[in-house]
Amino acid sequence: MRHFLVFSRTGRTKGDFRDLRKAGRLDVVVHCLISALFLSGRIRKDVIFHAILTGAPRPPIHLEFVGAKVKDLSSDEKHLATILRKTLNSYERRKRVEAFPGIFIEKNSLQGVIKKLHEKEVDIFVLREDGINLRKLKLSNRNNCFVVGDFIGLPKKDEEFILRYAKNVISIGPFPYFASHCITVINNELDNREYIF
Amino acid sequence: MRHFLVFSRTGRTKGDFRDLRKAGRLDVVVHCLISALFLSGRIRKDVIFHAILTGAPRPPIHLEFVGAKVKDLSSDEKHLATILRKTLNSYERRKRVEAFPGIFIEKNSLQGVIKKLHEKEVDIFVLREDGINLRKLKLSNRNNCFVVGDFIGLPKKDEEFILRYAKNVISIGPFPYFASHCITVINNELDNREYIF
Repeated sequence: MRHFLVFSRTGRTKGDFRDLRKAGRLDVVVHCLISALFLSGRIRKDVIFHAILTGAPRPPIHLEFVGAKVKDLSSDEKHLATILRKTLNSYERRKRVEAFPGIFIEKNSLQGVIKKLHEKEVDIFVLREDGINLRKLKLSNRNNCFVVGDFIGLPKKDEEFILRYAKNVISIGPFPYFASHCITVINNELDNREYIF
Repeated sequence: MRHFLVFSRTGRTKGDFRDLRKAGRLDVVVHCLISALFLSGRIRKDVIFHAILTGAPRPPIHLEFVGAKVKDLSSDEKHLATILRKTLNSYERRKRVEAFPGIFIEKNSLQGVIKKLHEKEVDIFVLREDGINLRKLKLSNRNNCFVVGDFIGLPKKDEEFILRYAKNVISIGPFPYFASHCITVINNELDNREYIF
Protein backbone atom coordinates (compact mmCIF):
# COMPACT_ATOMS: atom_id res chain seq x y z
CA MET A 1 0.00 0.00 0.00
CA ARG A 2 1.19 3.51 -0.83
CA HIS A 3 0.42 6.12 1.78
CA PHE A 4 0.83 9.82 1.20
CA LEU A 5 0.59 12.19 4.13
CA VAL A 6 0.37 15.94 3.66
CA PHE A 7 0.75 18.26 6.60
CA SER A 8 -1.25 21.47 6.34
CA ARG A 9 -0.23 23.87 9.06
CA THR A 10 -3.01 26.37 8.41
CA GLY A 11 -5.71 24.08 6.91
CA ARG A 12 -9.08 25.00 8.42
CA THR A 13 -10.55 22.25 10.61
CA LYS A 14 -14.22 23.11 10.20
CA GLY A 15 -16.30 23.05 7.02
CA ASP A 16 -17.56 26.61 7.23
CA PHE A 17 -15.68 28.03 4.26
CA ARG A 18 -16.52 28.82 0.66
CA ASP A 19 -13.09 29.25 -0.82
CA LEU A 20 -10.56 26.44 -0.34
CA ARG A 21 -7.61 28.78 -0.75
CA LYS A 22 -8.88 31.17 1.90
CA ALA A 23 -9.56 28.24 4.26
CA GLY A 24 -5.89 28.10 5.28
CA ARG A 25 -4.80 26.88 1.82
CA LEU A 26 -6.96 23.75 1.74
CA ASP A 27 -6.54 24.04 -2.04
CA VAL A 28 -3.05 22.59 -1.50
CA VAL A 29 -4.61 19.60 0.27
CA VAL A 30 -7.10 19.04 -2.57
CA HIS A 31 -4.34 19.21 -5.20
CA CYS A 32 -2.34 16.67 -3.19
CA LEU A 33 -5.41 14.43 -2.90
CA ILE A 34 -5.91 14.52 -6.68
CA SER A 35 -2.23 13.71 -7.30
CA ALA A 36 -2.32 10.86 -4.78
CA LEU A 37 -5.61 9.15 -5.63
CA PHE A 38 -6.49 9.84 -9.26
CA LEU A 39 -5.42 8.52 -12.59
CA SER A 40 -7.24 9.76 -15.69
CA GLY A 41 -10.67 8.18 -15.34
CA ARG A 42 -9.98 5.96 -12.37
CA ILE A 43 -9.00 5.77 -8.72
CA ARG A 44 -5.73 4.29 -7.47
CA LYS A 45 -6.93 1.45 -5.24
CA ASP A 46 -3.47 0.90 -3.74
CA VAL A 47 -3.25 4.41 -2.27
CA ILE A 48 -4.30 5.84 1.09
CA PHE A 49 -4.14 9.61 1.37
CA HIS A 50 -3.78 11.31 4.74
CA ALA A 51 -4.02 14.99 5.56
CA ILE A 52 -3.22 16.50 8.95
CA LEU A 53 -4.79 19.90 9.39
CA THR A 54 -3.68 22.14 12.23
CA GLY A 55 -5.57 25.33 11.43
CA ALA A 56 -8.43 26.84 13.48
CA PRO A 57 -10.79 26.05 15.17
CA ARG A 58 -10.17 22.47 16.41
CA PRO A 59 -6.73 21.13 15.46
CA PRO A 60 -5.29 18.63 14.94
CA ILE A 61 -7.56 16.80 12.49
CA HIS A 62 -6.61 13.67 10.60
CA LEU A 63 -8.41 13.03 7.30
CA GLU A 64 -8.00 9.71 5.53
CA PHE A 65 -9.08 8.80 1.98
CA VAL A 66 -8.85 5.08 1.23
CA GLY A 67 -8.56 4.54 -2.53
CA ALA A 68 -9.94 1.00 -2.40
CA LYS A 69 -13.09 2.11 -0.57
CA VAL A 70 -14.07 5.55 -1.89
CA LYS A 71 -17.14 5.70 -4.12
CA ASP A 72 -18.33 8.22 -6.71
CA LEU A 73 -15.33 10.45 -6.07
CA SER A 74 -14.43 12.66 -9.02
CA SER A 75 -11.32 14.78 -9.50
CA ASP A 76 -13.41 17.95 -9.89
CA GLU A 77 -12.15 20.49 -7.37
CA LYS A 78 -15.58 21.89 -6.58
CA HIS A 79 -16.89 18.41 -5.90
CA LEU A 80 -13.88 17.67 -3.68
CA ALA A 81 -14.34 20.99 -1.85
CA THR A 82 -17.91 19.95 -1.01
CA ILE A 83 -16.74 16.51 0.17
CA LEU A 84 -14.07 18.16 2.32
CA ARG A 85 -16.56 20.61 3.85
CA LYS A 86 -19.05 17.88 4.69
CA THR A 87 -16.34 15.60 6.03
CA LEU A 88 -15.03 18.36 8.32
CA ASN A 89 -18.57 18.99 9.52
CA SER A 90 -19.03 15.26 10.32
CA TYR A 91 -16.37 15.52 13.02
CA GLU A 92 -17.23 14.03 16.41
CA ARG A 93 -15.13 14.12 19.57
CA ARG A 94 -13.34 10.89 20.55
CA LYS A 95 -14.62 9.03 17.51
CA ARG A 96 -13.36 8.08 14.08
CA VAL A 97 -16.20 8.96 11.70
CA GLU A 98 -16.64 7.61 8.15
CA ALA A 99 -18.19 10.68 6.54
CA PHE A 100 -18.40 9.06 3.08
CA PRO A 101 -17.41 5.56 1.96
CA GLY A 102 -13.65 5.34 2.50
CA ILE A 103 -13.35 8.91 3.85
CA PHE A 104 -12.57 9.19 7.56
CA ILE A 105 -12.13 12.03 10.03
CA GLU A 106 -10.77 11.90 13.56
CA LYS A 107 -8.87 13.98 16.06
CA ASN A 108 -5.24 12.99 15.66
CA SER A 109 -1.86 14.67 15.31
CA LEU A 110 0.95 14.19 12.83
CA GLN A 111 2.92 12.37 15.52
CA GLY A 112 -0.07 10.17 16.40
CA VAL A 113 -0.64 9.12 12.79
CA ILE A 114 3.07 8.45 12.16
CA LYS A 115 3.23 6.26 15.29
CA LYS A 116 0.22 4.25 14.11
CA LEU A 117 1.65 3.74 10.62
CA HIS A 118 4.96 2.69 12.17
CA GLU A 119 3.16 0.15 14.38
CA LYS A 120 1.52 -1.25 11.26
CA GLU A 121 5.02 -1.74 9.79
CA VAL A 122 4.67 0.96 7.17
CA ASP A 123 8.06 2.43 6.19
CA ILE A 124 8.14 6.22 6.60
CA PHE A 125 9.91 8.60 4.20
CA VAL A 126 10.10 12.35 4.57
CA LEU A 127 10.34 14.70 1.58
CA ARG A 128 12.89 17.45 1.98
CA GLU A 129 14.98 19.42 -0.49
CA ASP A 130 18.26 18.03 0.84
CA GLY A 131 17.08 14.38 0.79
CA ILE A 132 18.55 11.58 -1.29
CA ASN A 133 17.35 11.19 -4.87
CA LEU A 134 14.05 9.28 -5.00
CA ARG A 135 15.37 7.25 -7.91
CA LYS A 136 18.21 5.91 -5.78
CA LEU A 137 15.87 4.98 -2.94
CA LYS A 138 15.67 1.29 -2.14
CA LEU A 139 12.28 0.17 -0.90
CA SER A 140 12.31 -3.01 1.14
CA ASN A 141 8.63 -3.02 1.98
CA ARG A 142 5.39 -2.90 -0.02
CA ASN A 143 3.91 -0.54 2.56
CA ASN A 144 5.40 2.91 2.40
CA CYS A 145 4.32 6.35 3.56
CA PHE A 146 5.64 9.54 2.00
CA VAL A 147 5.31 12.62 4.22
CA VAL A 148 5.07 15.98 2.46
CA GLY A 149 4.90 19.42 4.03
CA ASP A 150 2.69 22.13 2.58
CA PHE A 151 4.05 25.49 1.40
CA ILE A 152 5.24 26.29 4.95
CA GLY A 153 6.91 22.94 5.67
CA LEU A 154 6.82 20.74 8.75
CA PRO A 155 7.08 22.27 12.23
CA LYS A 156 10.58 21.74 13.69
CA LYS A 157 9.37 19.59 16.60
CA ASP A 158 7.25 17.34 14.39
CA GLU A 159 10.04 16.97 11.86
CA GLU A 160 12.49 15.91 14.56
CA PHE A 161 9.94 13.39 15.80
CA ILE A 162 9.28 11.95 12.34
CA LEU A 163 12.99 11.71 11.54
CA ARG A 164 13.33 9.27 14.44
CA TYR A 165 10.82 6.99 12.70
CA ALA A 166 11.77 7.70 9.09
CA LYS A 167 13.71 5.21 6.99
CA ASN A 168 15.07 8.01 4.88
CA VAL A 169 14.80 11.64 3.80
CA ILE A 170 14.19 11.93 0.07
CA SER A 171 13.96 14.55 -2.66
CA ILE A 172 12.48 14.35 -6.14
CA GLY A 173 14.81 16.81 -7.83
CA PRO A 174 17.04 19.85 -7.68
CA PHE A 175 14.31 22.48 -7.20
CA PRO A 176 11.59 23.37 -4.70
CA TYR A 177 8.47 21.64 -6.03
CA PHE A 178 4.82 21.97 -5.06
CA ALA A 179 3.68 19.28 -2.60
CA SER A 180 1.16 17.94 -5.15
CA HIS A 181 3.84 17.73 -7.85
CA CYS A 182 6.05 15.72 -5.47
CA ILE A 183 3.21 13.23 -5.00
CA THR A 184 2.65 12.95 -8.77
CA VAL A 185 6.34 12.19 -9.32
CA ILE A 186 6.49 9.61 -6.50
CA ASN A 187 3.36 7.84 -7.79
CA ASN A 188 4.90 7.75 -11.26
CA GLU A 189 8.23 6.45 -9.92
CA LEU A 190 6.47 3.63 -8.05
CA ASP A 191 4.31 2.81 -11.11
CA ASN A 192 7.46 2.45 -13.18
CA ARG A 193 9.08 0.21 -10.56
CA GLU A 194 6.07 -2.02 -9.97
CA TYR A 195 4.82 -2.59 -13.51
CA ILE A 196 6.60 -3.86 -16.59
CA PHE A 197 6.64 -1.00 -19.03
CA MET B 1 14.09 25.66 -24.16
CA ARG B 2 11.34 23.31 -23.02
CA HIS B 3 8.04 23.71 -24.79
CA PHE B 4 4.84 22.09 -23.63
CA LEU B 5 1.83 22.12 -25.90
CA VAL B 6 -1.59 21.07 -24.69
CA PHE B 7 -4.41 20.55 -27.13
CA SER B 8 -7.87 21.38 -25.76
CA ARG B 9 -10.53 20.20 -28.16
CA THR B 10 -13.41 21.89 -26.34
CA GLY B 11 -11.61 24.81 -24.66
CA ARG B 12 -13.69 27.96 -25.05
CA THR B 13 -12.09 30.60 -27.27
CA LYS B 14 -13.71 33.68 -25.77
CA GLY B 15 -13.39 35.03 -22.24
CA ASP B 16 -17.10 35.14 -21.45
CA PHE B 17 -17.18 32.37 -18.85
CA ARG B 18 -17.22 32.24 -15.07
CA ASP B 19 -16.34 28.62 -14.49
CA LEU B 20 -13.17 27.24 -16.10
CA ARG B 21 -14.49 23.68 -16.03
CA LYS B 22 -17.72 24.63 -17.75
CA ALA B 23 -15.78 26.60 -20.37
CA GLY B 24 -14.95 23.44 -22.30
CA ARG B 25 -12.65 22.15 -19.54
CA LEU B 26 -10.29 25.10 -19.52
CA ASP B 27 -9.48 23.92 -15.97
CA VAL B 28 -7.36 21.22 -17.67
CA VAL B 29 -5.42 23.94 -19.52
CA VAL B 30 -4.81 25.89 -16.29
CA HIS B 31 -3.59 22.78 -14.48
CA CYS B 32 -1.21 22.08 -17.37
CA LEU B 33 -0.01 25.69 -17.29
CA ILE B 34 0.76 25.40 -13.56
CA SER B 35 2.63 22.12 -14.07
CA ALA B 36 4.60 23.55 -16.98
CA LEU B 37 5.56 26.98 -15.66
CA PHE B 38 5.63 26.90 -11.87
CA LEU B 39 7.99 25.68 -9.23
CA SER B 40 7.16 26.40 -5.60
CA GLY B 41 7.67 30.14 -5.32
CA ARG B 42 9.14 30.78 -8.76
CA ILE B 43 8.63 30.60 -12.49
CA ARG B 44 10.54 28.26 -14.79
CA LYS B 45 12.31 30.67 -17.13
CA ASP B 46 13.31 27.89 -19.53
CA VAL B 47 9.72 26.89 -20.33
CA ILE B 48 7.26 28.07 -22.98
CA PHE B 49 3.73 26.80 -22.56
CA HIS B 50 1.37 26.58 -25.53
CA ALA B 51 -2.34 25.82 -25.54
CA ILE B 52 -4.40 25.24 -28.67
CA LEU B 53 -8.10 25.74 -28.04
CA THR B 54 -10.62 24.55 -30.58
CA GLY B 55 -13.88 25.15 -28.76
CA ALA B 56 -16.55 27.75 -29.66
CA PRO B 57 -16.86 30.51 -30.82
CA ARG B 58 -13.66 31.28 -32.84
CA PRO B 59 -11.31 28.32 -33.06
CA PRO B 60 -8.47 27.65 -33.42
CA ILE B 61 -6.72 29.86 -30.86
CA HIS B 62 -3.07 29.60 -29.90
CA LEU B 63 -2.09 30.84 -26.45
CA GLU B 64 1.55 31.15 -25.50
CA PHE B 65 3.05 31.77 -22.05
CA VAL B 66 6.77 32.56 -22.09
CA GLY B 67 8.31 31.74 -18.70
CA ALA B 68 11.22 34.15 -19.14
CA LYS B 69 8.91 37.09 -19.86
CA VAL B 70 5.78 36.68 -17.71
CA LYS B 71 5.42 39.06 -14.78
CA ASP B 72 3.42 38.89 -11.54
CA LEU B 73 1.96 35.54 -12.48
CA SER B 74 0.88 33.46 -9.49
CA SER B 75 -0.16 29.82 -9.44
CA ASP B 76 -3.56 30.70 -7.93
CA GLU B 77 -6.25 29.23 -10.18
CA LYS B 78 -8.63 32.14 -9.76
CA HIS B 79 -5.90 34.56 -10.74
CA LEU B 80 -5.00 32.42 -13.76
CA ALA B 81 -8.69 32.17 -14.75
CA THR B 82 -8.84 35.97 -14.81
CA ILE B 83 -5.64 36.16 -16.88
CA LEU B 84 -7.05 33.58 -19.30
CA ARG B 85 -10.37 35.43 -19.65
CA LYS B 86 -8.68 38.76 -20.30
CA THR B 87 -6.21 37.18 -22.72
CA LEU B 88 -9.02 35.55 -24.71
CA ASN B 89 -10.82 38.88 -24.81
CA SER B 90 -7.69 40.61 -26.16
CA TYR B 91 -7.92 38.57 -29.36
CA GLU B 92 -7.61 40.47 -32.63
CA ARG B 93 -7.95 39.05 -36.15
CA ARG B 94 -4.74 38.59 -38.13
CA LYS B 95 -2.57 39.78 -35.27
CA ARG B 96 -0.49 38.28 -32.53
CA VAL B 97 -1.42 40.19 -29.38
CA GLU B 98 0.62 40.36 -26.17
CA ALA B 99 -2.23 40.52 -23.66
CA PHE B 100 0.12 40.59 -20.64
CA PRO B 101 3.93 40.53 -20.49
CA GLY B 102 4.97 37.20 -22.02
CA ILE B 103 1.37 36.07 -22.68
CA PHE B 104 0.36 35.95 -26.33
CA ILE B 105 -2.82 35.13 -28.26
CA GLU B 106 -3.25 34.58 -31.98
CA LYS B 107 -5.34 32.63 -34.44
CA ASN B 108 -3.39 29.48 -35.19
CA SER B 109 -3.99 25.75 -35.39
CA LEU B 110 -2.17 22.81 -33.86
CA GLN B 111 -0.66 22.05 -37.26
CA GLY B 112 0.40 25.66 -37.76
CA VAL B 113 2.15 25.85 -34.39
CA ILE B 114 3.89 22.50 -34.86
CA LYS B 115 5.17 23.60 -38.27
CA LYS B 116 6.57 26.81 -36.78
CA LEU B 117 8.31 24.98 -33.95
CA HIS B 118 9.74 22.51 -36.44
CA GLU B 119 11.08 25.40 -38.56
CA LYS B 120 12.76 26.77 -35.44
CA GLU B 121 14.48 23.37 -35.05
CA VAL B 122 12.57 22.37 -31.97
CA ASP B 123 12.30 18.58 -31.62
CA ILE B 124 8.69 17.40 -31.31
CA PHE B 125 7.55 14.57 -29.03
CA VAL B 126 4.01 13.29 -28.72
CA LEU B 127 2.65 11.77 -25.50
CA ARG B 128 0.64 8.62 -26.00
CA GLU B 129 -0.01 5.60 -23.80
CA ASP B 130 1.79 3.23 -26.19
CA GLY B 131 4.87 5.44 -26.55
CA ILE B 132 8.39 4.55 -25.48
CA ASN B 133 9.37 5.10 -21.87
CA LEU B 134 10.34 8.74 -21.26
CA ARG B 135 13.32 7.59 -19.23
CA LYS B 136 14.75 5.76 -22.22
CA LEU B 137 14.29 8.77 -24.48
CA LYS B 138 17.48 10.25 -25.89
CA LEU B 139 17.34 13.99 -26.43
CA SER B 140 19.77 15.35 -28.96
CA ASN B 141 18.63 18.93 -28.79
CA ARG B 142 18.20 21.53 -26.05
CA ASN B 143 14.95 22.68 -27.68
CA ASN B 144 12.15 20.18 -27.25
CA CYS B 145 8.38 20.35 -27.44
CA PHE B 146 6.14 17.83 -25.68
CA VAL B 147 2.62 17.61 -27.12
CA VAL B 148 -0.11 16.46 -24.75
CA GLY B 149 -3.77 15.82 -25.53
CA ASP B 150 -6.49 16.78 -23.08
CA PHE B 151 -8.96 14.25 -21.66
CA ILE B 152 -10.31 13.56 -25.18
CA GLY B 153 -6.95 13.18 -26.92
CA LEU B 154 -5.72 14.53 -30.25
CA PRO B 155 -7.98 14.49 -33.32
CA LYS B 156 -6.96 11.67 -35.67
CA LYS B 157 -6.02 13.98 -38.55
CA ASP B 158 -3.90 16.25 -36.36
CA GLU B 159 -2.19 13.30 -34.75
CA GLU B 160 -1.25 11.86 -38.14
CA PHE B 161 0.12 15.24 -39.15
CA ILE B 162 2.17 15.66 -35.98
CA LEU B 163 3.57 12.13 -36.20
CA ARG B 164 5.18 13.09 -39.49
CA TYR B 165 7.10 15.82 -37.65
CA ALA B 166 7.61 14.04 -34.33
CA LYS B 167 10.98 12.62 -33.30
CA ASN B 168 9.25 10.08 -31.12
CA VAL B 169 6.08 9.00 -29.33
CA ILE B 170 6.61 8.77 -25.60
CA SER B 171 4.82 7.65 -22.46
CA ILE B 172 5.51 8.43 -18.81
CA GLY B 173 4.23 5.18 -17.34
CA PRO B 174 1.91 2.19 -17.49
CA PHE B 175 -1.34 4.01 -16.74
CA PRO B 176 -3.51 6.75 -18.22
CA TYR B 177 -2.37 9.94 -16.52
CA PHE B 178 -3.84 13.43 -16.43
CA ALA B 179 -2.26 15.77 -18.97
CA SER B 180 -1.00 18.06 -16.18
CA HIS B 181 0.58 15.12 -14.35
CA CYS B 182 2.41 14.13 -17.55
CA ILE B 183 3.89 17.63 -17.74
CA THR B 184 4.96 17.52 -14.07
CA VAL B 185 6.75 14.22 -14.64
CA ILE B 186 8.47 15.42 -17.83
CA ASN B 187 9.67 18.62 -16.15
CA ASN B 188 11.03 16.56 -13.27
CA GLU B 189 12.75 14.12 -15.65
CA LEU B 190 14.45 16.98 -17.50
CA ASP B 191 15.43 18.66 -14.20
CA ASN B 192 17.12 15.45 -13.13
CA ARG B 193 18.95 15.13 -16.43
CA GLU B 194 20.09 18.73 -16.63
CA TYR B 195 21.20 19.38 -13.09
CA ILE B 196 23.61 17.53 -10.86
CA PHE B 197 21.58 16.15 -8.01
